[in-house]
Amino acid sequence: MQMVLPGEGDMLKIDYRFAMNGLIGANGLGKKQLAAALKKAQAALKDLKARRDRGELGFATVLNDRAMVDSCAGLGKKYRGKLDNVVVLGIGGSALGPRALAKALLPHPLLKNQGPRLLACDNVDPEDLSEIFKIAFSGRSLFLAISKSGATPETGSQLLYVVNRLKKNYGKKWKEHLLVITDPEKGVLRKFADRHDLQSLPVPPKVGGRYSVLTPVGLAPAALLGIDPQELLRGATIIDEIVFSGKHKPCAAELLAALYWAFAAKGRNMLVMMPYSSKLADLSEWFAQLWAESLGKKFSLTGREVHAGTTPVRALGVTDQHSQLQLYLEGPSDKLVTFIKVEKFREHLDVPKAASGLEELSWLSGHSFAELINVEQFATSASLARSGRPSITISIPRVDAYNLGALFYLFELVTVLVASLWGINPFDQPAVELGKQYTASLLGRPGFEDKERELDRFNKKASRFLWPRK
Amino acid sequence: MQMVLPGEGDMLKIDYRFAMNGLIGANGLGKKQLAAALKKAQAALKDLKARRDRGELGFATVLNDRAMVDSCAGLGKKYRGKLDNVVVLGIGGSALGPRALAKALLPHPLLKNQGPRLLACDNVDPEDLSEIFKIAFSGRSLFLAISKSGATPETGSQLLYVVNRLKKNYGKKWKEHLLVITDPEKGVLRKFADRHDLQSLPVPPKVGGRYSVLTPVGLAPAALLGIDPQELLRGATIIDEIVFSGKHKPCAAELLAALYWAFAAKGRNMLVMMPYSSKLADLSEWFAQLWAESLGKKFSLTGREVHAGTTPVRALGVTDQHSQLQLYLEGPSDKLVTFIKVEKFREHLDVPKAASGLEELSWLSGHSFAELINVEQFATSASLARSGRPSITISIPRVDAYNLGALFYLFELVTVLVASLWGINPFDQPAVELGKQYTASLLGRPGFEDKERELDRFNKKASRFLWPRK
Repeated sequence: MQMVLPGEGDMLKIDYRFAMNGLIGANGLGKKQLAAALKKAQAALKDLKARRDRGELGFATVLNDRAMVDSCAGLGKKYRGKLDNVVVLGIGGSALGPRALAKALLPHPLLKNQGPRLLACDNVDPEDLSEIFKIAFSGRSLFLAISKSGATPETGSQLLYVVNRLKKNYGKKWKEHLLVITDPEKGVLRKFADRHDLQSLPVPPKVGGRYSVLTPVGLAPAALLGIDPQELLRGATIIDEIVFSGKHKPCAAELLAALYWAFAAKGRNMLVMMPYSSKLADLSEWFAQLWAESLGKKFSLTGREVHAGTTPVRALGVTDQHSQLQLYLEGPSDKLVTFIKVEKFREHLDVPKAASGLEELSWLSGHSFAELINVEQFATSASLARSGRPSITISIPRVDAYNLGALFYLFELVTVLVASLWGINPFDQPAVELGKQYTASLLGRPGFEDKERELDRFNKKASRFLWPRK
Repeated sequence: MQMVLPGEGDMLKIDYRFAMNGLIGANGLGKKQLAAALKKAQAALKDLKARRDRGELGFATVLNDRAMVDSCAGLGKKYRGKLDNVVVLGIGGSALGPRALAKALLPHPLLKNQGPRLLACDNVDPEDLSEIFKIAFSGRSLFLAISKSGATPETGSQLLYVVNRLKKNYGKKWKEHLLVITDPEKGVLRKFADRHDLQSLPVPPKVGGRYSVLTPVGLAPAALLGIDPQELLRGATIIDEIVFSGKHKPCAAELLAALYWAFAAKGRNMLVMMPYSSKLADLSEWFAQLWAESLGKKFSLTGREVHAGTTPVRALGVTDQHSQLQLYLEGPSDKLVTFIKVEKFREHLDVPKAASGLEELSWLSGHSFAELINVEQFATSASLARSGRPSITISIPRVDAYNLGALFYLFELVTVLVASLWGINPFDQPAVELGKQYTASLLGRPGFEDKERELDRFNKKASRFLWPRK
């Protein structure tokens, strides 16, 4: 890919004045504290760079996979003008990337005369699914079954439903409406794709679900929805250059990792992610998985019981000023807020002159909504500061594919660095297995009978703890 | 209103087995601990009942306001079949109730051939607003300006925009497209409505924004969207009867308040609200405001500095099992989870026989998605229990207006009871004022010049804490 290095104005910025004790008092970091945290982060980055250079960091390696992005772009071309809906059958890392991209970069779904919409089947609510399937099957839809392992029961059951309907509706042509994105060699989805010679794309084996947005998991839906996958990768590649070139000391990833680490060390167990942009609302959802699943760990790499993790809290500016801000200002001082600010909106939208009877509101006239939202962001960070509550503001120049790619990749690096500082493994999720086994057992899946007794124990005497009492 | 008392099967249930130490170990409550908490809650309820009986509890008093519900229902009738969009200009308590209702009770917005859709303008993002206005002004829309005080700048600036456009589009008939919901006597919106003789409905003065979903703030949008406001009130009234009749010892509100209080006292600073129903996703948003703004308080009623509050964490089952569950299971043990379970879904949606090549998934065939989602809910609560993590499951018979009304009112009572146990005022939100003043100052509103110096202080030396360094 031809890389154009960004000018100053085309790069994200991090404003951390409200993380420092100079402006927020004792809850903030002193310069020495920050320097110490940065030193740790620097060492962690050195390690990370070595792993990256050896090709061990899957989500970094794929940035250079030209064939991967070409295949996704090709898919976009093939279906251009031929789809009403791109239907993702996927959950967790298989849905959150596509959802974040669609929310940020596509028009409001109710606007007429647009390209295909994203329908994300990332739950198994029968009321919701029935409606989504009704929409999907009454238009021109391509269904994307996305699961790295292929074994995800939510996606699996949806796929059984969809294949059944596709065969009924289209007979032998059912295959044209399906795309499989899964491991290149293993798992039931791969077998299924091979058996029927279905269209399919690989999830690179070295990339875990929550780090997969810049693989076909995110790039294929993006391309089908009219979002340029090259631009997403370009944004990520710039961050890669910034972080690993050594030109910035500290680089953006070191700085954020140091700040996040330092505030967690000071006992703040929540990390609020609060973009001031409705379009970025689902970026918080994507981030919340990345952060929670990567960092919420019982054991350290050396086997110590650590119960690591801070909880990502999803919020939205300005909306949550009228919902959560009172708590953030006066409740327990247990949070670090990350704001995401958009420097330049695609629309400004001016507030017009006040109609008669509304003169009291005329102080708003002549300003734009773009101005209002950014002024409110600063006012909120400043009022938090006045209450001694720390925050960090990340600004991006615009909401576009380039900047989304940059944010995705930066947060992935930061998450892995924080894991390194905590001495934990950011790439596994050992705990969720048990719930899956319980589900299998409760649905009578052969081989899971041994869980029945455990579940029986939970039902003994349970009626004593039911309201209303019988 | 004619009240029909519900049968056992038509009432919500609370399952708190996984809150007790018998099943989850030391993190759970002992019977004595729970009994002590219940005793406190009982005393708080006695106080609350006295206030309710004296007519001091605004959100309870309105349940008997026949004229209020009739006016909302009448509005629904007047506009039946005449609207494509109900556009709420409102934020916080003025939008979260309508949003929760629409999400729960209306079909998916992209389904064809339905009644009016809700468009909620609860942010000032210019990209998002431009699109919503484009949709609204290209169909038959009624705009609802909802603000108790009338002074909300977000809603005010939207109203300036909308009135301007309505006058351009409809000339003298602009008034037909506007409904004002505000204080019956005070504020700029009331003045505006009076001046132009606009359609308007009152927000009862004794009911604060976040407690107003069962006033015209929620009931008018509901009626316009085809949701029966009487049913919402019927659900609330049943809870009122259950809570205040003294027939249940403990009642549902006492039980939940005692549990929430006891786990907060044990140091759990997060309350996860996790419905297993996509339709209830925005109920969590509504709850999050109620809980955060009511309970996040610096001072007690006696003026002590307490920094009360626990943070509401919005989650969704099963979706967040693939995002947050790893953290909830293995991270710090700092949360109490409340699940909401739906006993009977309006659709079941069966998983069909496995197509060839997908035989590995055939253990899912023959089950329904309704079964799957509820089995996963139990499996999740059980796996949390195995890790010693507490949870409570509230079951509702169905997702309908009656049960929504019940949940709204129950959570309002529980929140006020917890405030009472903490000795704080659940009805104010003193801290958010400063941010509003900063915003006014930054936009040059006359009278707010004194804030400039404070803000200047925040900008001094700020460039030292900017990345990248210049």
